Amino acid sequence: MNSIKFDYSSVCNFVKKEEIGMLFPEAERALQSLKDGNCKGNDFLGWLDLPEQITVEELKDMEETARALRSRTEVVVVIGIGGSYLGARAVIEALAGSFHNFGKADMKIIFAGHNIGEDYYYELLNYLEDKEFGICVISKSGTTTEPAIAFRLLKEMLEKKVGRTEAGKRIVAITDAHKGALRTLADQEGYKSFIIPDNVGGRFSVLTPVGLLPIAIAGFDIRALVKGAVEMRKLCLEQEINPATEYAAARTALHRKGYNIELLADFNPKLHYIIEWWKQLFGESEGKDHKGIFPAGVDFTTDLHSMGQFIQQGPRMMMETVISVEKPHHRVDIPADDANLDKLNFLAGKRVDEVNKMAELGTRLAHVDGGVPNMLVTLPELTAEYIGQLFYFFELACGISGCMSGVNPFDQPGVEAYKNNMFALLEKPGYEEASKAIQKRLK
Amino acid sequence: MNSIKFDYSSVCNFVKKEEIGMLFPEAERALQSLKDGNCKGNDFLGWLDLPEQITVEELKDMEETARALRSRTEVVVVIGIGGSYLGARAVIEALAGSFHNFGKADMKIIFAGHNIGEDYYYELLNYLEDKEFGICVISKSGTTTEPAIAFRLLKEMLEKKVGRTEAGKRIVAITDAHKGALRTLADQEGYKSFIIPDNVGGRFSVLTPVGLLPIAIAGFDIRALVKGAVEMRKLCLEQEINPATEYAAARTALHRKGYNIELLADFNPKLHYIIEWWKQLFGESEGKDHKGIFPAGVDFTTDLHSMGQFIQQGPRMMMETVISVEKPHHRVDIPADDANLDKLNFLAGKRVDEVNKMAELGTRLAHVDGGVPNMLVTLPELTAEYIGQLFYFFELACGISGCMSGVNPFDQPGVEAYKNNMFALLEKPGYEEASKAIQKRLK
Repeated sequence: MNSIKFDYSSVCNFVKKEEIGMLFPEAERALQSLKDGNCKGNDFLGWLDLPEQITVEELKDMEETARALRSRTEVVVVIGIGGSYLGARAVIEALAGSFHNFGKADMKIIFAGHNIGEDYYYELLNYLEDKEFGICVISKSGTTTEPAIAFRLLKEMLEKKVGRTEAGKRIVAITDAHKGALRTLADQEGYKSFIIPDNVGGRFSVLTPVGLLPIAIAGFDIRALVKGAVEMRKLCLEQEINPATEYAAARTALHRKGYNIELLADFNPKLHYIIEWWKQLFGESEGKDHKGIFPAGVDFTTDLHSMGQFIQQGPRMMMETVISVEKPHHRVDIPADDANLDKLNFLAGKRVDEVNKMAELGTRLAHVDGGVPNMLVTLPELTAEYIGQLFYFFELACGISGCMSGVNPFDQPGVEAYKNNMFALLEKPGYEEASKAIQKRLK
Repeated sequence: MNSIKFDYSSVCNFVKKEEIGMLFPEAERALQSLKDGNCKGNDFLGWLDLPEQITVEELKDMEETARALRSRTEVVVVIGIGGSYLGARAVIEALAGSFHNFGKADMKIIFAGHNIGEDYYYELLNYLEDKEFGICVISKSGTTTEPAIAFRLLKEMLEKKVGRTEAGKRIVAITDAHKGALRTLADQEGYKSFIIPDNVGGRFSVLTPVGLLPIAIAGFDIRALVKGAVEMRKLCLEQEINPATEYAAARTALHRKGYNIELLADFNPKLHYIIEWWKQLFGESEGKDHKGIFPAGVDFTTDLHSMGQFIQQGPRMMMETVISVEKPHHRVDIPADDANLDKLNFLAGKRVDEVNKMAELGTRLAHVDGGVPNMLVTLPELTAEYIGQLFYFFELACGISGCMSGVNPFDQPGVEAYKNNMFALLEKPGYEEASKAIQKRLK
């Protein structure tokens, strides 16, 4: 099996090999506690076995639903936020053409419900005016403010446009199996629906219908994605020292040495949202009890010309993990030019990617020299299968890292804080006392 | 004059008012040294007076060039990286419709030369195949690798497609006044060209043709942008205590207390690239000599569901600055729903923006309560004029902050490190010794 690789050899300039070695038993214990289900937050460990548990029938059902929706529409608005947004977006942006939203394609995916921008919704409604559109709405409860607002607006518009019956055929819901507003509505209106398992948190849900259905609607291969996750699961769960324990041990060793920011870097703009997905995964899992490594993303070489200076010579508190893609899908050679005014003829005949690869290697060396420990994750190609491997690798490493730092990696109690204030300010029923208190405070 | 506002009152929960007060004289001295031109890096202070110095003739020239290019093309590819990319992109993304790249518009702007993605260029060339396109190429030297590769590829394609004469009319160059590859080529081929001043660094160049011309090509009001900068310049240079000294003093006080990450947050997705521009401005200016505040961006409420947990309860090392836009351009009301399954009827009849504003206020309160000092920048509306004010405000505050921390805010020596390695690895003529050394190291 060809697979993604993890290399932490450059870390050894910063942490002694023995220091990382000493963390392996700790990482292995953490992994064991995940496997045994006796870690903190163990009611949310469903993601561990997800790849194995998805059946061919479930995948087929999603593929057929996607096909049906595609046949009725030219645009599908995927409504979701956080874990109900980033996984699908990460895969779709990684696999779609860079200009897929500019040119012609048989399906456009638009995301909504992930912000409360009034102009965003005005422009979205306006854009959809003359389009045949459908909706894929993702919410466990159906009452999360951002997606609920978006769904109200778009459902109303769609029903006005095509009638309630046709709208019912163009709306797919991904929600709780039994309870909640969206479950009730889906059952009432006869929407096709899929289930968000109870034991999988949002940021670990990309391999449930939450991620898989939108990816299928966009036209990408969800079987390959799951296959990749199955492969990485096998690789990581069957041996104690594996890429996930290595990554967890290396970053934990660095963190304990005082490196408290981790940069995840790509050299391919299509990986931008995979990095955003990773930021949620690690940030939300580790950032609690005043602990955690601050997760930041950089797209290189773009950001070498913005954040590059800081990384090279700013405070020495950053570690860096580079995601490298070995083989591009297409070939572009750099042309020769007789005048050679730009002095680029030494590159003539080379592939663009050769330059990119030397930028990557040159950057890694420069950052290590400058005092930034470097780790490397290599994907053979940017395909659904390797992205599936990457997801499982990061999820498992995240669970292990969180256990090692002593937090519950599977809750997110801090996310309620802004919501509670917002509800109090908006005088939501049930928040009367909080409303009074916050109004008093603001005086 | 209506103008953007800066409020740092919430910082006083974390730093005593007197502690900030004690920094004002320092901030004022830094401002004075910028005005007197006796600070470090004083050969790059051109940005201070740029807004006043641009003449109506220069603006007209850019507007007419933009008009001519628009009349010949449907797509313009803007080639540039770093400071020759982010300023224009920030304004265009802030002022364009959220779906401008999806729907019909009389002009599309595509950015290139800011990465070395082989698939990106393959797909770009493919996309441009059947388009009437033009090129706006921005490079001081004309030899920076990323834009030089992009320009070689696109110039060759354009000349093949429409012939060298017509191509010459569709290419505009923004480059050095006298020297460099692009200047030579522009003069040879008779390209319309504009000048990058010698005394303005890339990240401070948005109010030169580097930023202004692409913005004009996209169809936005560059006079209003400059007007805004003129207003903020007047406001800040005519009084010692002004928004820029306040911001510089407040963030420096927090930094000296140990807050070493600054989050710039928006509640409007259109501001995303303004934050990217800010990250370069501050990161590249302050991140040197192992000093600096790590600049990170968050788009709320989107990222409240990813980075929110970390911000609320992670390590207490972050300060946060929120950019708030008071008034949206359009109106969308939240509809009522008889069934009210989503329990959103308490919001029925409210504008979407009212919810957004309460999310914003609720977030600021929650973050302060959680231990994240908060600062606030308010724009009355998201218009070119207020963005112009914002740019000058941030540029001046950045210059002051950099001087206060003792670095040269106007150089970026660390950016060369990866380039030197890359050239050595690619065996660029002149790098023979370095090539040998790096090959030896890699063995």
